[in-house]
Amino acid sequence: MLDEDVTAGDSELISLADYGRAAAGALDAGARAYFAGGAGDEITMRDNLAAWQRLAIRPRTLVGVGNRELSVTLLGRRRPHPIVIAPMAYQRLAHVDGEIATARAAAATESIMCLATFSTTTSPVVAEAVPGGSRWFQLYVFSDRGLSRELVTQAVEHGYEALVITVDLPVVGVRERELRSEVQVQLATEQMIDRVTAAGGRGLTPAEFTSLIDPDLRWSDIEQFASDCPLPVIVKGILRAEDAVIALEHGARGIVVSNHGGRQLDTVLSGADALPAIVEAVGGLADVLVDGGIRRGTDVVKALALGAQGVLVGRPVLWGLAVDGAGGAQRVLEILLSEFDCALALAGARSVEELDPSFITAAPWVAVPR
Amino acid sequence: MLDEDVTAGDSELISLADYGRAAAGALDAGARAYFAGGAGDEITMRDNLAAWQRLAIRPRTLVGVGNRELSVTLLGRRRPHPIVIAPMAYQRLAHVDGEIATARAAAATESIMCLATFSTTTSPVVAEAVPGGSRWFQLYVFSDRGLSRELVTQAVEHGYEALVITVDLPVVGVRERELRSEVQVQLATEQMIDRVTAAGGRGLTPAEFTSLIDPDLRWSDIEQFASDCPLPVIVKGILRAEDAVIALEHGARGIVVSNHGGRQLDTVLSGADALPAIVEAVGGLADVLVDGGIRRGTDVVKALALGAQGVLVGRPVLWGLAVDGAGGAQRVLEILLSEFDCALALAGARSVEELDPSFITAAPWVAVPR
Amino acid sequence: MLDEDVTAGDSELISLADYGRAAAGALDAGARAYFAGGAGDEITMRDNLAAWQRLAIRPRTLVGVGNRELSVTLLGRRRPHPIVIAPMAYQRLAHVDGEIATARAAAATESIMCLATFSTTTSPVVAEAVPGGSRWFQLYVFSDRGLSRELVTQAVEHGYEALVITVDLPVVGVRERELRSEVQVQLATEQMIDRVTAAGGRGLTPAEFTSLIDPDLRWSDIEQFASDCPLPVIVKGILRAEDAVIALEHGARGIVVSNHGGRQLDTVLSGADALPAIVEAVGGLADVLVDGGIRRGTDVVKALALGAQGVLVGRPVLWGLAVDGAGGAQRVLEILLSEFDCALALAGARSVEELDPSFITAAPWVAVPR
Amino acid sequence: MLDEDVTAGDSELISLADYGRAAAGALDAGARAYFAGGAGDEITMRDNLAAWQRLAIRPRTLVGVGNRELSVTLLGRRRPHPIVIAPMAYQRLAHVDGEIATARAAAATESIMCLATFSTTTSPVVAEAVPGGSRWFQLYVFSDRGLSRELVTQAVEHGYEALVITVDLPVVGVRERELRSEVQVQLATEQMIDRVTAAGGRGLTPAEFTSLIDPDLRWSDIEQFASDCPLPVIVKGILRAEDAVIALEHGARGIVVSNHGGRQLDTVLSGADALPAIVEAVGGLADVLVDGGIRRGTDVVKALALGAQGVLVGRPVLWGLAVDGAGGAQRVLEILLSEFDCALALAGARSVEELDPSFITAAPWVAVPR
Repeated sequence: MLDEDVTAGDSELISLADYGRAAAGALDAGARAYFAGGAGDEITMRDNLAAWQRLAIRPRTLVGVGNRELSVTLLGRRRPHPIVIAPMAYQRLAHVDGEIATARAAAATESIMCLATFSTTTSPVVAEAVPGGSRWFQLYVFSDRGLSRELVTQAVEHGYEALVITVDLPVVGVRERELRSEVQVQLATEQMIDRVTAAGGRGLTPAEFTSLIDPDLRWSDIEQFASDCPLPVIVKGILRAEDAVIALEHGARGIVVSNHGGRQLDTVLSGADALPAIVEAVGGLADVLVDGGIRRGTDVVKALALGAQGVLVGRPVLWGLAVDGAGGAQRVLEILLSEFDCALALAGARSVEELDPSFITAAPWVAVPR
Repeated sequence: MLDEDVTAGDSELISLADYGRAAAGALDAGARAYFAGGAGDEITMRDNLAAWQRLAIRPRTLVGVGNRELSVTLLGRRRPHPIVIAPMAYQRLAHVDGEIATARAAAATESIMCLATFSTTTSPVVAEAVPGGSRWFQLYVFSDRGLSRELVTQAVEHGYEALVITVDLPVVGVRERELRSEVQVQLATEQMIDRVTAAGGRGLTPAEFTSLIDPDLRWSDIEQFASDCPLPVIVKGILRAEDAVIALEHGARGIVVSNHGGRQLDTVLSGADALPAIVEAVGGLADVLVDGGIRRGTDVVKALALGAQGVLVGRPVLWGLAVDGAGGAQRVLEILLSEFDCALALAGARSVEELDPSFITAAPWVAVPR
Repeated sequence: MLDEDVTAGDSELISLADYGRAAAGALDAGARAYFAGGAGDEITMRDNLAAWQRLAIRPRTLVGVGNRELSVTLLGRRRPHPIVIAPMAYQRLAHVDGEIATARAAAATESIMCLATFSTTTSPVVAEAVPGGSRWFQLYVFSDRGLSRELVTQAVEHGYEALVITVDLPVVGVRERELRSEVQVQLATEQMIDRVTAAGGRGLTPAEFTSLIDPDLRWSDIEQFASDCPLPVIVKGILRAEDAVIALEHGARGIVVSNHGGRQLDTVLSGADALPAIVEAVGGLADVLVDGGIRRGTDVVKALALGAQGVLVGRPVLWGLAVDGAGGAQRVLEILLSEFDCALALAGARSVEELDPSFITAAPWVAVPR
Repeated sequence: MLDEDVTAGDSELISLADYGRAAAGALDAGARAYFAGGAGDEITMRDNLAAWQRLAIRPRTLVGVGNRELSVTLLGRRRPHPIVIAPMAYQRLAHVDGEIATARAAAATESIMCLATFSTTTSPVVAEAVPGGSRWFQLYVFSDRGLSRELVTQAVEHGYEALVITVDLPVVGVRERELRSEVQVQLATEQMIDRVTAAGGRGLTPAEFTSLIDPDLRWSDIEQFASDCPLPVIVKGILRAEDAVIALEHGARGIVVSNHGGRQLDTVLSGADALPAIVEAVGGLADVLVDGGIRRGTDVVKALALGAQGVLVGRPVLWGLAVDGAGGAQRVLEILLSEFDCALALAGARSVEELDPSFITAAPWVAVPR
């Protein structure tokens, strides 16, 4: 359990939402559009938060929660808590220290950091700058398989512990905030800038980078990576139970139930709503993680009670990064962990293992998105 | 599949909703009232949009969507995509080029255009001005059957490929925006102006033109048109499955599930909500199309997944027309087609044929109209 | 069917809601508080409107609706349409002509008028001023049964055709708008002013008049009136099916499903929601009418399709009265009748008799009160 | 039954909500934050009110409600009505007379007052200042069991009639309004100030006082108090039916279904929603009370109809206290009792005993929290 107490004395920023508001002021317009935007009418993006709020907790009492145990097992390893930093591209758009700052915040809070393919600092540089942390590597599989293999090899060599293959971006979603902005990401790694430039790109917008991604990716490719790569493969971006089963059949060791932060296809289900059927279909044969809309300790409790082994947190860490670099990202994680600890206690569970679906029921209230 | 990319560089207008906002400024008050208004409290008009948003997509992943096939079969002919321009009256109120501009946009995007009985350019003139496109003719059956037959004969002679008989306007709905405005439509064809004038009309409001329509139309009339007219007959304005079956029995080759854009009877079901029961009742014996509230590529995917063969799009094309004539209408169709292509890919379907109801589930969120 | 057409040329007031807005300006603050207010948080008052909006119409098509028949049978007599003016107290607060103006509007539109016990013109005076109309008399049963009997005798002698006994006011509801206003109703008939004054009253607020009502009224009293009075007895204020059955057993010839316009007990069901179970329980053995929230012709169609024989309309008539005396009240009724006629046609029914519950389904949208 | 009538003449404050608004102006910022705030996003705090509004009343008619009986049996004693003042800490933050004023209001209205462990006046002082009333004592069990025993002994000696043990605060919830404020509660009793000071505390924030509470409390502790203490034990803070059964097994004579006013764990069920299952599980073997969001007489009727023996009312009494000391608290209770009496009559019940679940149904409307 955590010793961190959240008090107003430390700072006026005492919730993840506070950091969200502060980050809106700290980011320039282009970066704000890039990070904050979602697909289409942003129904799914807003619903990612609302979906957790539509779940009610049924607390137990008087079980003696003086000592709580937040630890979980992820990919066979014991971790002090279930929170993972989601892969997010172009973090130097948020703060000059970018991914290195995030890695420091991860290490300070014993959170796993998942580094993105479109990071603005390469995986070796992050690994060398912050030797201590536990990290995963997120992979977009490019049409140019050679480049993808290079990225994987680098990650393996630098101690990344899992390969998280994102499968929900065969084409880029309709992101209007981004289309209306002029965001340029010259910060991306030279490897990829070379490829984009060679392909005729010049503006170096996020859309140009994503055009490197193979729209024809198939399950056989996942199987290939699972057999070729020494790291366990996690498939990120599953929303149907059928697909979770197929993932297992093709060698996945983990599933991230995700709609890409509401940035890809609008009006798909939230992670919260898609999770239970996938947990049931996977039946304990792989780890199931979930992301999208985690903003409160109660959200973490709900995800775990519904059967997730871990949760990924994205934009809030970015907000911390934008507001105050590594310290801000660390503070965001500390707030979330502190809230999670408190929620676990008040739900009446002494450990994550005690949580189960009986702690959750459909909320009788209506949480209207927005 | 389409090659058009939607980028902000082309224009500030990147969504159908953008065109809606821009059109509000481009139209004069009377035309705006006529085109934008719905019946009664406009609950159904607003719900036409909300109903699509209450459907969630369940995407599949990793099926290899590098090449998508948007084509469909409508009335036995292969069409490059399922989007049809809905019949809309008095298009010269929106732009001086009126129906001819719309026909050009249709031809440029290979969309079927459905010309309205109350067009401000006659069917022969449209056909001669834009020789290339594929067009249907929408018919209001008048008490004066002779006039109706003239209109049909003209359409047949000028290559219109189907007869779309609108059956949900025995009387005109309570449209308050229109009643409050002073819109005059002296632009209607001389044929009809003569009839209205002869009948004592002088103001030439839309309501006066609609008074020509036979309120006593019956299924036997549909059967008559189906047997007399060489074109396939599509019945537009069905919301009950029972009526869809009756339509087939009277010779209809297609059904348009429609509430007339929310302009006729307030608080009827949306096309989205009425569609599934009608698809089931029709059982593949005729084509089922749907209209009302289609504003996003995801809406098109949902309509097709629920079993529609095609969708009609109305007001958005009008908005494009009002903003920029043929070019604006074309751009609206291109945006919608581009979004449809993207949504198909992200839903995990390589072609329209792969869509089925398993892609759709009731949304767990609440889309409040407005 | 009606010949009245609603066009903006006649007036800017083309809907009942328009009259509501206009009346708010025409009434003084006290009268506005008295007429507009509901009980408690006014949840039920708002829901009275929303409940009709939560019902969707399933229209039929092509049945030939050139000639519609709006007539119904009420208490064994054929009436040209199903609309009844609800009993409303103190109408001279709304307009100097008060109940006499309302009676004129009723006669002009062939609507039944239900005169209130707390009318500001007595039943004989109304009957003499407007000889032609069809009228019912609403009775509050007072602790002083003699006074009640006097009122009934007067009504019988002056040709009132039914006795509508209100049973949902054993005590007056918590009406905060009224409590906050200073409304005085010195206009009430001398008979009752004498009684109130004799009982020590002086301020003559509505609450003082209602204190005359017997809080201990029972079913046996209804039976007494039913056997003593030559007029058919209608019991107004029933919301439970069990009570409707008891009413029949005690001689009621009709039931008004009503929550007193949301003015008595907040958070009770609307008439729209309570109606179906009561229709089923009554099983055709008596007439069932409904009131509360009828603002549109579609609402009337829904009430009749769910099995009501008639609908009572209250506040909208009052709004018309406040805006323009008899003419305003008449216009409100004409608008509603015109909308009803239009809605019947567009629902696909040639007569009221053709309506049945298959025309109605629960709306898939959410009508949030307010 | 009560003789109090609520009329605007007495005061502009005629509803509990009026007192809420007035109190917001009367309290300083720190006290307002402390009393008004809830946990997390305050979803549960808002839902506590909304949940009662989502229940509809099904009134009976004509049962003769001239004489109503509001009395109930609580812990085997007949009480004139079912309303209990909930335990609330630090009442001298709201008004200089603090708990003594509340005790006077309780005595004047024959309401039971539940004194809080963190009262700013000790239980003996309250008992001596207001000899007449009926009082319960709320206990937080401290890690320092000796101090807890002292508090219980004092309460027993001074005539408190029940021991209400709060079990939903093993740790303090995430209360952001409180964290953002600087509220200091030096007013707490010296006994506890000594302990906090000895433990190194200095600021004397509410959080420091709550740190005295034993997070490891278990059911065996309840059993200990039930057997050691001569007073009946009520367990406050139960939301699961399973826990209610366990409470009975450990000697509880009563249960308070409560989420601590939404101040502990956000997104748990309201008392209104949790109540029915607990009533069923308890099966009459103990008294079930409920708190949270009671603001109207209709709420009291609903709680009793669903099977509660009594209701606790918290913040509204505080508002009355803040606005006008003992007189304000008394007025709040009088308004609520008057509304309760009115609602009972209009629901068609002559006594609390006549209420049962048939009076309640799920509301067809949607009460959106806020």
